[in-house]
Amino acid sequence: MKINLINPNTCTGMTEKIAESARAVALTTTDIIASSPSDGPESIESAFDEAIASAALLDVIQAGEAAQVDAHIIACFGDPALDAAREIATVPVIGIAGAAFQLASLISYRFGIVTTMTRTLPASEHLLHRYGYQHLCSGVRATDIAVLDLEETNDDIYLELKLECEKSIQSDGAEAIVLGCAGMSDLVARLSEDLQVSVIDGVAAAVKLAESLHQLGLKTCKIGQYGAPLTKAFHGRYQHWDNCSTTLKK
Amino acid sequence: MKINLINPNTCTGMTEKIAESARAVALTTTDIIASSPSDGPESIESAFDEAIASAALLDVIQAGEAAQVDAHIIACFGDPALDAAREIATVPVIGIAGAAFQLASLISYRFGIVTTMTRTLPASEHLLHRYGYQHLCSGVRATDIAVLDLEETNDDIYLELKLECEKSIQSDGAEAIVLGCAGMSDLVARLSEDLQVSVIDGVAAAVKLAESLHQLGLKTCKIGQYGAPLTKAFHGRYQHWDNCSTTLKK
Amino acid sequence: MKINLINPNTCTGMTEKIAESARAVALTTTDIIASSPSDGPESIESAFDEAIASAALLDVIQAGEAAQVDAHIIACFGDPALDAAREIATVPVIGIAGAAFQLASLISYRFGIVTTMTRTLPASEHLLHRYGYQHLCSGVRATDIAVLDLEETNDDIYLELKLECEKSIQSDGAEAIVLGCAGMSDLVARLSEDLQVSVIDGVAAAVKLAESLHQLGLKTCKIGQYGAPLTKAFHGRYQHWDNCSTTLKK
Amino acid sequence: MKINLINPNTCTGMTEKIAESARAVALTTTDIIASSPSDGPESIESAFDEAIASAALLDVIQAGEAAQVDAHIIACFGDPALDAAREIATVPVIGIAGAAFQLASLISYRFGIVTTMTRTLPASEHLLHRYGYQHLCSGVRATDIAVLDLEETNDDIYLELKLECEKSIQSDGAEAIVLGCAGMSDLVARLSEDLQVSVIDGVAAAVKLAESLHQLGLKTCKIGQYGAPLTKAFHGRYQHWDNCSTTLKK
Amino acid sequence: MKINLINPNTCTGMTEKIAESARAVALTTTDIIASSPSDGPESIESAFDEAIASAALLDVIQAGEAAQVDAHIIACFGDPALDAAREIATVPVIGIAGAAFQLASLISYRFGIVTTMTRTLPASEHLLHRYGYQHLCSGVRATDIAVLDLEETNDDIYLELKLECEKSIQSDGAEAIVLGCAGMSDLVARLSEDLQVSVIDGVAAAVKLAESLHQLGLKTCKIGQYGAPLTKAFHGRYQHWDNCSTTLKK
Amino acid sequence: MKINLINPNTCTGMTEKIAESARAVALTTTDIIASSPSDGPESIESAFDEAIASAALLDVIQAGEAAQVDAHIIACFGDPALDAAREIATVPVIGIAGAAFQLASLISYRFGIVTTMTRTLPASEHLLHRYGYQHLCSGVRATDIAVLDLEETNDDIYLELKLECEKSIQSDGAEAIVLGCAGMSDLVARLSEDLQVSVIDGVAAAVKLAESLHQLGLKTCKIGQYGAPLTKAFHGRYQHWDNCSTTLKK
Repeated sequence: MKINLINPNTCTGMTEKIAESARAVALTTTDIIASSPSDGPESIESAFDEAIASAALLDVIQAGEAAQVDAHIIACFGDPALDAAREIATVPVIGIAGAAFQLASLISYRFGIVTTMTRTLPASEHLLHRYGYQHLCSGVRATDIAVLDLEETNDDIYLELKLECEKSIQSDGAEAIVLGCAGMSDLVARLSEDLQVSVIDGVAAAVKLAESLHQLGLKTCKIGQYGAPLTKAFHGRYQHWDNCSTTLKK
Repeated sequence: MKINLINPNTCTGMTEKIAESARAVALTTTDIIASSPSDGPESIESAFDEAIASAALLDVIQAGEAAQVDAHIIACFGDPALDAAREIATVPVIGIAGAAFQLASLISYRFGIVTTMTRTLPASEHLLHRYGYQHLCSGVRATDIAVLDLEETNDDIYLELKLECEKSIQSDGAEAIVLGCAGMSDLVARLSEDLQVSVIDGVAAAVKLAESLHQLGLKTCKIGQYGAPLTKAFHGRYQHWDNCSTTLKK
Repeated sequence: MKINLINPNTCTGMTEKIAESARAVALTTTDIIASSPSDGPESIESAFDEAIASAALLDVIQAGEAAQVDAHIIACFGDPALDAAREIATVPVIGIAGAAFQLASLISYRFGIVTTMTRTLPASEHLLHRYGYQHLCSGVRATDIAVLDLEETNDDIYLELKLECEKSIQSDGAEAIVLGCAGMSDLVARLSEDLQVSVIDGVAAAVKLAESLHQLGLKTCKIGQYGAPLTKAFHGRYQHWDNCSTTLKK
Repeated sequence: MKINLINPNTCTGMTEKIAESARAVALTTTDIIASSPSDGPESIESAFDEAIASAALLDVIQAGEAAQVDAHIIACFGDPALDAAREIATVPVIGIAGAAFQLASLISYRFGIVTTMTRTLPASEHLLHRYGYQHLCSGVRATDIAVLDLEETNDDIYLELKLECEKSIQSDGAEAIVLGCAGMSDLVARLSEDLQVSVIDGVAAAVKLAESLHQLGLKTCKIGQYGAPLTKAFHGRYQHWDNCSTTLKK
Repeated sequence: MKINLINPNTCTGMTEKIAESARAVALTTTDIIASSPSDGPESIESAFDEAIASAALLDVIQAGEAAQVDAHIIACFGDPALDAAREIATVPVIGIAGAAFQLASLISYRFGIVTTMTRTLPASEHLLHRYGYQHLCSGVRATDIAVLDLEETNDDIYLELKLECEKSIQSDGAEAIVLGCAGMSDLVARLSEDLQVSVIDGVAAAVKLAESLHQLGLKTCKIGQYGAPLTKAFHGRYQHWDNCSTTLKK
Repeated sequence: MKINLINPNTCTGMTEKIAESARAVALTTTDIIASSPSDGPESIESAFDEAIASAALLDVIQAGEAAQVDAHIIACFGDPALDAAREIATVPVIGIAGAAFQLASLISYRFGIVTTMTRTLPASEHLLHRYGYQHLCSGVRATDIAVLDLEETNDDIYLELKLECEKSIQSDGAEAIVLGCAGMSDLVARLSEDLQVSVIDGVAAAVKLAESLHQLGLKTCKIGQYGAPLTKAFHGRYQHWDNCSTTLKK
């Protein structure tokens, strides 16, 4: 199968890192095609960044559809533009936060989330609510590590991250840790070993769920809420969507 | 005061209609500046449309900030990009759905919502949840009138709309009606008279709330969640935000 | 327009103070008529006080209706007897807590409440629940300042109040402060300046909302829950309501 | 033990009926003292009626305290003034709605409520929320029988009531019926027999709970929320509470 | 009346203690028949223990039914197998946690729970949710006293328990204490005296509720969810239930 | 990997059917070991059945642990004994209802559940609540097909099932269907084709999730709530657990 692995940030270093993490856990029959939009912010750390990145990300979904991929993964912990992407996709679209919550809930009673900037805490709360996992989460903790600093992680960053994970376990009662940024995916093994609890990376989780859906022949339901949007006029920099008949419904 | 009244749809006919409704209720000292983005879909009727329109709408917010307006109103019932807009605004940003809910709750025990496409029902439910008004709403009803058909309303459309309002009152127990599209704002007076209950238009409600905040000197709080986003690199069609120092925080 | 501004406490000093705060923000065309009931407790600081004050307050609503006011404001942070008042009123009835929550939510992501006695904390929680603003409130803090001590505020009281506001901002994450007593309305300007965040007084907020509703021609919906109560026999000290046909429905 | 059984309506016919129902289920050692306030509405059918009745009812609580009763029962399905009464009482205060919910939940998975006027439905919903029994209730149905018509029940009224009980069982899935008015307490036996399901009368339930608490030596906790209100000045028709030191705390 | 008082733990020392506590509060006409299953764990301190004990406990319910008891009490704070027991019982089945919550809510605004092992905290949370008392509970505290150590309580254990009760009152705002283990029932009097707040033992509460239901003639509703299970084949160690026609429905 | 696929009903016909469904979707490297307990009811259709089956099922979990399986699947839609099983397991334990909800939520906005007996509806509601998927479910429908009738499905049963699926889609707005019994797993393909929407079988879903967890090296977290229960004395028919040191913690 082919997975369209999308880094909605325009920083290409992170795209490479995420691709590597995905390939490390994918089946040998799974082809990981990693990319990021040409347009938009280098990193997503506010509602403003997310709004811009969301519009840009949809181009990559459409490109994936054109390339006949079997699933899309949105590899940013905010799961941006998920509903919009599902509307224009025929195959499954999986957000890494939702994927991580699902697997974490199968192996722990309460999981903790350790994420990047304090500013993004409400986004995590919103995700927990959206997916219905609030009661299964022991708390969300911010490290105040900037997303771009995760492109090349060093020991200082690792130690800060580990410290918040330890607090999550000891103070909040977390039994497993969900990492709140795709850029942390290369630290999973080291953290798991040091913390002696399960550490869940959403990129890896999403890859396995994409493979699972593909093997079961399950695709995005195109009746109801995720049906294709009506074709209509789009202006200016979004003219490529104008009366677009590939993924939109006439 | 100056109000930046934004129609996030790119259909200019609706911009005119909304401006008129706003001016009809504004104080004489209030200057209504109505516009719509140059980019984006003609109408917002899906999560996909909303994602594109959200990115485009932020340009209009920034233009309004540059023009030193005293408040922004997002005149689309989905209240798209509200949090993102508040991050880059220094003055209040008001969504018409939230505004309508607030005023409706002051004069009725339970209000009903009558909106456009069936497809948008989950959006209304999401708004009720976001603002915390679920328990004060007797139900949401769709008319399946397309947004663009509201640019020029005729008798057929009026009757369809009235019919759903009557069902909302008689079957759902609505004591007041909130209209679920800015494009319905010219029908408020006729509906109020025919239905004999209060009919609330979010555009009018938002204008009064914008004036209220202005008179009290209340502006968007710039600490915490609505603080300015960090300046950073933006690429491609969003390059105008690149290291933007007007509204973003260095 | 004429606003019936009601201090449900029988302490007249506070009535004067509240009237002044209201007039300071009212439009020049708005006439503030401030009064308090002749009967009832000097201050409301318990469910018992509130039950007595509620019955007394309804007389002032009826007097306002007789005087053909255009709106009633219940200027006590518990919003006592709000539903009962709406039943016997034809024009809008606004509680200052609800009004403050509405405006605070338009300019902040999370607001804090700073109120009087610890004993009243459950009342604030009940109000947040009733109006649906729990998720938008970062927490409620009591100062243990008695209501009557707010009739004439001194520096000590100001400093105690400011201290709790600072804790609300720094510890609870409040981005704006809602003051939890009508008697604090004269301290808004000083607090706003010292705290550098928006401070919202419910009296001022309610005045602006009353003006907004009046300008839009919106009145209390008299079908359903806020319809006039049936006329019936009332005995003893409530005989003035006996088969009362002014505001009650035959 | 002595129970102060209070009919908060001023209609004395209902007081007699309720007393009889209470005595029919009380232990031989329990003395039922039934009364109603001298002041207030003949029946409680709106928030307005309830606000007036609440202030009046507190006099009867105080009289009961003076007479050294061992428990108070508020025999109106709205459980009016319950928190205020608990503040000025030293012994337990039990509302009949809460009492009925408790016993109904011990013998059924889902109980239905059949009450008087449509207008009172929100009151029942509020009670279910307050006590936390929403998820255990299959629905609330109104008969539109006026409270005063229950003073002397005839066959027509019985049949209307039975009809709604049957709908509650067959359409809503009720497994037991809670009667939503103290005035229905004389119909319990006949309904139970005709419906072949358990029918729960709040008056009887409250008597048994009052006896239970008394036998266990449990009284209203006077620390925290139900502590005595502070003594303070009361004016006009509430002057009997002025600096009252019997039940209020100096 | 005859009450089937069941200690679902197989430790017989606790059965004796519980019987004594029950008899101390029962009416003279109430016959307490205390027993525990022959099969199962000595104490219930995990979901695993509870699953085993639940299956065993149902034999004791059936024995009680055969002995024509008038009520069953499940005397373990987890209220294990409550729904299953109600399905095979014709008379009321009461869990001691639910019973304690009911009486505590009648005399306090917020009650605290003090229980045994930290491991059982989620069980208490689940019970509060199941019965709908979450908002009436100020918090749950574990003492980490093992259940079997409560068979013979000494001063050390008493002091540990008292310490957590004090924290519940002072830090959490508890106004009354619910004891979270049947094995603590002999300490109620001493704790009540030392703490000066009401202390509620579920065993005593359940006895009074069982008597109340019996006196009102209320039994488990056998239509709907608590109807008798269908008779069917049971194998192996559960063969005594095979096509059992005593309590199961053909 | 080896999966311990457990049919908690003692009807062996269904065990065979479930094994086949599991093998049809499993990777070639996955070994499905299907079994059912020797003890317990032939089918689970009530809380009573579930309580008995839960205790029996734990023996099969322990046998699986002894056989060093890599995951356990509880193949009954009630997900019985899930927490207890996780306590005594070192590898993941997955319930088929939870697994189906997870995959359904990845491809639809709202899924419907079509299950067996009306009597089991509360069980489905409980599962939705437990996992937090209530808001993602459009409704639960019962077919009143007995579990044992699913051992060998005929056309009549298929048509009844299809009818309820159609109602779920057309009346409730389901966009995908979750089948509410492991015994329906052989009908997935036929239903999917006839209904033209995705139909999700929990057995298949659970197999893919078990494989996913295994490939990521994720196991049940043994700190906190799912830690091994303390070893202790077990009596009678549960003596095989007495001071058991294999899976229990000393």
